[in-house]
Amino acid sequence: MTLRLLAFAASLRQASWSRRLLGVTVEVARANGAEVDVAEFHEFDMPLYDADLQAAEGIPPGAQLLSARIGAADGILLASPEYNFSMPGTLKNAIDWVSRVKPMPIRGKSAMLLSTSPGLVGGNRGLWALRIPLESLGAHVYPDMFSLAQGDKAFDAAGQFTDPVVRERLTKMVQEYLKVAEALAAT
Amino acid sequence: MTLRLLAFAASLRQASWSRRLLGVTVEVARANGAEVDVAEFHEFDMPLYDADLQAAEGIPPGAQLLSARIGAADGILLASPEYNFSMPGTLKNAIDWVSRVKPMPIRGKSAMLLSTSPGLVGGNRGLWALRIPLESLGAHVYPDMFSLAQGDKAFDAAGQFTDPVVRERLTKMVQEYLKVAEALAAT
Amino acid sequence: MTLRLLAFAASLRQASWSRRLLGVTVEVARANGAEVDVAEFHEFDMPLYDADLQAAEGIPPGAQLLSARIGAADGILLASPEYNFSMPGTLKNAIDWVSRVKPMPIRGKSAMLLSTSPGLVGGNRGLWALRIPLESLGAHVYPDMFSLAQGDKAFDAAGQFTDPVVRERLTKMVQEYLKVAEALAAT
Amino acid sequence: MTLRLLAFAASLRQASWSRRLLGVTVEVARANGAEVDVAEFHEFDMPLYDADLQAAEGIPPGAQLLSARIGAADGILLASPEYNFSMPGTLKNAIDWVSRVKPMPIRGKSAMLLSTSPGLVGGNRGLWALRIPLESLGAHVYPDMFSLAQGDKAFDAAGQFTDPVVRERLTKMVQEYLKVAEALAAT
Repeated sequence: MTLRLLAFAASLRQASWSRRLLGVTVEVARANGAEVDVAEFHEFDMPLYDADLQAAEGIPPGAQLLSARIGAADGILLASPEYNFSMPGTLKNAIDWVSRVKPMPIRGKSAMLLSTSPGLVGGNRGLWALRIPLESLGAHVYPDMFSLAQGDKAFDAAGQFTDPVVRERLTKMVQEYLKVAEALAAT
Repeated sequence: MTLRLLAFAASLRQASWSRRLLGVTVEVARANGAEVDVAEFHEFDMPLYDADLQAAEGIPPGAQLLSARIGAADGILLASPEYNFSMPGTLKNAIDWVSRVKPMPIRGKSAMLLSTSPGLVGGNRGLWALRIPLESLGAHVYPDMFSLAQGDKAFDAAGQFTDPVVRERLTKMVQEYLKVAEALAAT
Repeated sequence: MTLRLLAFAASLRQASWSRRLLGVTVEVARANGAEVDVAEFHEFDMPLYDADLQAAEGIPPGAQLLSARIGAADGILLASPEYNFSMPGTLKNAIDWVSRVKPMPIRGKSAMLLSTSPGLVGGNRGLWALRIPLESLGAHVYPDMFSLAQGDKAFDAAGQFTDPVVRERLTKMVQEYLKVAEALAAT
Repeated sequence: MTLRLLAFAASLRQASWSRRLLGVTVEVARANGAEVDVAEFHEFDMPLYDADLQAAEGIPPGAQLLSARIGAADGILLASPEYNFSMPGTLKNAIDWVSRVKPMPIRGKSAMLLSTSPGLVGGNRGLWALRIPLESLGAHVYPDMFSLAQGDKAFDAAGQFTDPVVRERLTKMVQEYLKVAEALAAT
């Protein structure tokens, strides 16, 4: 069985640190046998959630596309910035729309969460907030999360980690996640 | 001193239970001497947060308006639905934009949080998630929160509570909040 | 493969609602093929965590026993009361001691969390707080959690649910958990 | 009015980093006019919470003492370690006992939370978990929290910060808290 993963960084900013971290993670996942569908967050452009809008026009195309891409995958590699000690409103808005799709595509999927930021905490608190809606929707969020402090100094011009130890640590976590994701995908 | 409050329900839906709860709360706050600026959440329409958009075009008008209305108030009455065991992405997106305004208007303001939902929990878990970004931005979020279970049965056609005990409970909490909000506004 | 589970209710009170809920859950798990080691929380009696005490005397016997029982199991059925909108200090204290054991026995285990209380929320907020230390230690906490409102009216004199629908709902969740727990145990 | 504060570090370990941070904080609070009752956490030694024990023997002396000391104060300076991404079980156990005292002494008190740890996050996640039970019991937990990374390198032999900028940052936060605590104490 080849594990199929959807990967995206929940940032609309071009020079996003999260996207760089996701880039290396996708490389590592592919090198370990996973098939990865890499998406850009702006592909899933959608309006702010409004139940009246949903009643009038249904699920917007961006949320339908995200739902379909999640539905086609066994699991998700999700790199997310931390805004104000929690998850970005943009990402929560996407989750809120997707949660209205029937059947709800997040249920039963595995997920590995990653973050990086220029600060010392590396966006880790945002990931803890993000676990809650994902788990409430039935996702198996991998317990370990990869949070990289001082992301502004972590990458070279080619988008690789300047410190090889960081890649080793990421590789080990991705390999462990892949093993669990495969077991879950087979249930 | 007359306490000035901004009040809004973080829902775009016309028939929102949160808006009904906010309506009674505003009545109670005014009856107890507060001056209340009631806003509709759609007045603060704004795009999904994008740091590149901010760099190119600045803070969008909806976020500027929300910042100005918060800035003109001593405190906030905020009724919010719970989506997926957390705060709505729409509200978090608004907080994310406002957090970029200098000087940041939320700092030092008091806030009272309210929720209602048709279920048994009344949206209370969403409010706990909402405290985090507000407190991280320096708001004095009142410790007690008003969460009303079975909101779909709580209101009559005139938008009043069918059970007078609920109004008494709300009135007591609002009065206690107003006392604290006045003390904080004077610091 | 027979799945081995450790089951306990994190309450020292004899007439604990959590223990009743655990009792039915154990029945259901056994009826679905699991081998369940049922423990009483007071078997794991241990002092308040103190790093100096650990340095002087090592891990106390109660924490060693809990670690060994977790270590011998593939997963945990854990019913926990909610105290003050979070997990009980008693349970967190047990986790804090167990987290000092090398190798740390919680890592890689699955867990299903349950709660009940006389109130409308059924102790659910306590379980969300409890996920955090368990997940930070590497446990695969099952995303769905079984929280039963109005636990004081839910059981008959024989310790069975008065409403058969509740048992169906619990059975379905336990069966789904067992499937996932088996997949994880095989990794 | 002289503001009366209770101060303690929620660690039983003699060489606790939290206690060092609390020591400097107490100095700063006194230098700014507060009257501070400094307690050691082991003065409040108490058993693990057990509702049957409470029914048989009442609130244990350690919890009664903590309740009385909180009751005599306007606010609390509380330095707490982070264990397993949450608050220590020992501290939660103390809160659980105190929450059973009538009238409940935490209600209406202000609190300033502090943490330090050898790591990069400085124990900040533990403080966010700690806010929840305190706020659910009606405490006005000051929004800003002082979390000091790399606490193992932060103090000199005399227990002072090696970096004067850290003391300035702490002093500013304490002064702001004291202003708010005085306003709240007068309500």
